Amino acid sequence: MFITFEGIDGSGKSTQAKALAATLEAQGIEVVLTREPGGSPGAEEIRRMVLEGEPDKWSPQTELLLFTAARRDHLEKTIVPALAAGKVVICDRFADSTRVYQGITRGDLRKQVDTLHQLMIGREPDLTFIVDMDPSVGLARAKGRQGTEERFEDFGVSMQEQMREGFLSLAAEFPDRCIVIDGNRDIDTVAAEIAGIAKANLG
Amino acid sequence: MFITFEGIDGSGKSTQAKALAATLEAQGIEVVLTREPGGSPGAEEIRRMVLEGEPDKWSPQTELLLFTAARRDHLEKTIVPALAAGKVVICDRFADSTRVYQGITRGDLRKQVDTLHQLMIGREPDLTFIVDMDPSVGLARAKGRQGTEERFEDFGVSMQEQMREGFLSLAAEFPDRCIVIDGNRDIDTVAAEIAGIAKANLG
Repeated sequence: MFITFEGIDGSGKSTQAKALAATLEAQGIEVVLTREPGGSPGAEEIRRMVLEGEPDKWSPQTELLLFTAARRDHLEKTIVPALAAGKVVICDRFADSTRVYQGITRGDLRKQVDTLHQLMIGREPDLTFIVDMDPSVGLARAKGRQGTEERFEDFGVSMQEQMREGFLSLAAEFPDRCIVIDGNRDIDTVAAEIAGIAKANLG
Repeated sequence: MFITFEGIDGSGKSTQAKALAATLEAQGIEVVLTREPGGSPGAEEIRRMVLEGEPDKWSPQTELLLFTAARRDHLEKTIVPALAAGKVVICDRFADSTRVYQGITRGDLRKQVDTLHQLMIGREPDLTFIVDMDPSVGLARAKGRQGTEERFEDFGVSMQEQMREGFLSLAAEFPDRCIVIDGNRDIDTVAAEIAGIAKANLG
């Protein structure tokens, strides 16, 4: 089973991905916890190259190609082998993030995003948790973190608002696999709701 | 005018690209001499990442995405601005190299190569010189050079032979822009033939 977590920066999705992995592992389920961009040595190398540059270093089209290359490597080297071994894969961001970031907020590239995905990736998650969060709270949280990977956060609160709308639109577009979770609650409450849904889907 | 040079490793195409640039510049024509993979700061960064790894570091599909990202950056930052300024662009390798390397010799990806090119690049050269060369001579020349970029040369003479056939097939597929040049002659003779054809096309 392939589970992804999506949402704006600072929504708590990384925390929730880790919490779900810990809960499932405590029940004896083998889990691979991974993230994008990155998740394999080659993809991490591409991730560093994309995220550590200036915000206008790469055009939206070039960035889209680089993220797709990283995703292909991640899929081949990490996700597919783990699923083939019967493990549960939990991934922090996947193709939905690309759809929102590149397709909606930068350059109206949604058609190119979709064609590229079908051509070079061709795989959707079985279950996607979209952690919904007030954009200004999310931005404040994201800005409070350390690190050099400030590429997206630098675009400000209006971009966070557009991204939130983008993720909610995706949830409506892919209702069979997407579940919107209210992330404006305490961590344990959110984690308990997610664990319940995941376990029901694991059967 | 956008002119490209193609051919197997060691065919002399880089030498011939430089010679043509020098000849045109001596006649007062503004020339931008560039190369792939690379040709812009971002594309050079991608080039280093792809070429300096182990031969099996990236799958053919991931490599195809990375080369396409590099080409998109090169096109946006170097080629299109130079053409817009009325300069002649001479490029050592372009999309035909991808068609041959990834599409023909690795993984039967030609359809993906073509779709990706149409979707993200969408530009062909006005004139392409395919410098044809005996594969064993080309390989010996390429191996005699210094450098860490041994990714393709390492595949050996049978790959060189397949690549030569690939380039000749492309020449037949794109007869309007491709001219096959016999590179098994001395450098000055080859350069004179190329300069004559280029000048006739520049009008």
